Amino acid sequence: MARESEIIRRLRKRAQVANEVLVGIGDDAAVITGRGSKDLILCCDLMAEGVHFRPEWTPPRILGRKALAVSLSDIAAMGGIPRFAMISVALSRECSSEFIDEFFGGLFEFAGKSGVSIIGGDTSSSRDSLFIDVSAIGECESGAAVTRGGANVGDTIYVTGSLGASALGLLLLEDGFRIDESTATGPRSKAVLKHLSPEPRLELGRVLGEKRLASAMIDISDGLSTDLWHILDESNRGAIISAAAIPIDECVWSVASSVPGIDPLTLAVNSGEEYELLFTAPLKDRRQISELSSACAVEITAVGEIVEAGGLQLEREGSIELIRPAGYEHRI
Amino acid sequence: MARESEIIRRLRKRAQVANEVLVGIGDDAAVITGRGSKDLILCCDLMAEGVHFRPEWTPPRILGRKALAVSLSDIAAMGGIPRFAMISVALSRECSSEFIDEFFGGLFEFAGKSGVSIIGGDTSSSRDSLFIDVSAIGECESGAAVTRGGANVGDTIYVTGSLGASALGLLLLEDGFRIDESTATGPRSKAVLKHLSPEPRLELGRVLGEKRLASAMIDISDGLSTDLWHILDESNRGAIISAAAIPIDECVWSVASSVPGIDPLTLAVNSGEEYELLFTAPLKDRRQISELSSACAVEITAVGEIVEAGGLQLEREGSIELIRPAGYEHRI
Repeated sequence: MARESEIIRRLRKRAQVANEVLVGIGDDAAVITGRGSKDLILCCDLMAEGVHFRPEWTPPRILGRKALAVSLSDIAAMGGIPRFAMISVALSRECSSEFIDEFFGGLFEFAGKSGVSIIGGDTSSSRDSLFIDVSAIGECESGAAVTRGGANVGDTIYVTGSLGASALGLLLLEDGFRIDESTATGPRSKAVLKHLSPEPRLELGRVLGEKRLASAMIDISDGLSTDLWHILDESNRGAIISAAAIPIDECVWSVASSVPGIDPLTLAVNSGEEYELLFTAPLKDRRQISELSSACAVEITAVGEIVEAGGLQLEREGSIELIRPAGYEHRI
Repeated sequence: MARESEIIRRLRKRAQVANEVLVGIGDDAAVITGRGSKDLILCCDLMAEGVHFRPEWTPPRILGRKALAVSLSDIAAMGGIPRFAMISVALSRECSSEFIDEFFGGLFEFAGKSGVSIIGGDTSSSRDSLFIDVSAIGECESGAAVTRGGANVGDTIYVTGSLGASALGLLLLEDGFRIDESTATGPRSKAVLKHLSPEPRLELGRVLGEKRLASAMIDISDGLSTDLWHILDESNRGAIISAAAIPIDECVWSVASSVPGIDPLTLAVNSGEEYELLFTAPLKDRRQISELSSACAVEITAVGEIVEAGGLQLEREGSIELIRPAGYEHRI
């Protein structure tokens, strides 16, 4: 069984790229030189039925929204502004005209809110599963794109929002819990909505890029442990994070208190599809980060520090344990 | 059953686009303002197993090549130079490590030959079919992109290469004919290779754009009748084409002579996935087009003329018949 990361590693070795390619295969997005003083940021995100979503628990409007949102999250994770998107869909026989309208309705609505122009794409039938691939194109000032590879020793590690709710939401959906979107309240609904309808940190990502505050950045799509590991791998550094500092979502605490077998910390560390930003920044900028948190009305929590080496270490109640990436990676 | 074209029409109405979007949804590719005196050309092409290809008759190396080739063909059809591409694949369980290596091998080889840098993409598993989406990014001089909407009354209609072989190749494959790529000779093999391994007219498309010779252009992916109809629709014009002028591939004549039920003209008029260029140009440039044909070593044939209105008319043996688009459009 080849894993995605192995395929990507092999492709990276193989790729020969032109001079204008500033960042190629292997980051959240690619970066090429753009117009004037701008660079272009480009990425794709595909969603396959039965792997990334199940139509029976995902209203088409929310599915369309999410398909775009996860691509725009990658642009935010590079410190860019999303500008354009293209949508490819292979529609299964089950996709009714209403489904298609709702799907694109949700997608176009989110595009409008995000200032993104839908400029093209491709449509086709599919003989079985529904497939969606969204290509997003963003921009940033020349040289301002934030890669995974810039973390320095002593940098603080930050995470936006709170973690664990998306994985909890998925568990609840698998367990048969469903929500009525319009009336959804309570911790279970909150968790499911975080999973189905994540809110990418578009403004914060853009500002972090503009102000050149982040030394490395990634969005949490595979889980804090896996995604931080990507930063460490690309930056050739290690990290110590503090279990007590990890912002575990309130709904996780709430549900865990009544459901045996749910460990909030494990959930928060490994929960994929959170679409929160994970970034590093020098200690000296701590105050600016805090101001940014207020200005963008997004919680930003310091969870640890970049160190010379030693992999990813979790400090819990005075002891250290080494954690391996254990997040959300689709096996192929 | 909604048809692709209907979905696209609805999306076009809905799309609100930024000022930099020079061409949006509905052409071979989108065009946005690029760096310096350049415009960027962007498109996606998806290929779904069982709809666009069958693994049992498509060697993975040829499949990877074709996935990229058909996207680059769209850039050529806008008069652009392909520069970058991103590849999204959802891999089925049947895709072995060797399959993946061969698929990307063919794709990267064609990228190298075409001067295209592979800058990113996405990989995932698929629970059933294999799904491939290639986003291509090209460029052209500002304002030089050739759309489907510029055909003028009196313009000559040209087609590159010859037609019919791709549809014949598909018929032969469906009928059980297989080729050994390395030793393939003869008309049947030629037809199958045209279907599986089309040669997009990258150089010719680029030069037509650079020299601003084409008033409208499209690549023949859905069939001459459908694709010419797209030009007429966007240009708000009609056309008369001559049956005797249509360049029917030699292999079609050859196979048709021994297989009953194959009508070479019908095949040539409706054959999709040819990836030849169909374009219009003013009469005064006839000589330059002829010189270009020699310079690029690509046959270019005048097949008809743009007229004021009246849809698409086929002149055959002195009589005129109206033809409706009947090419290759995947029903959804």
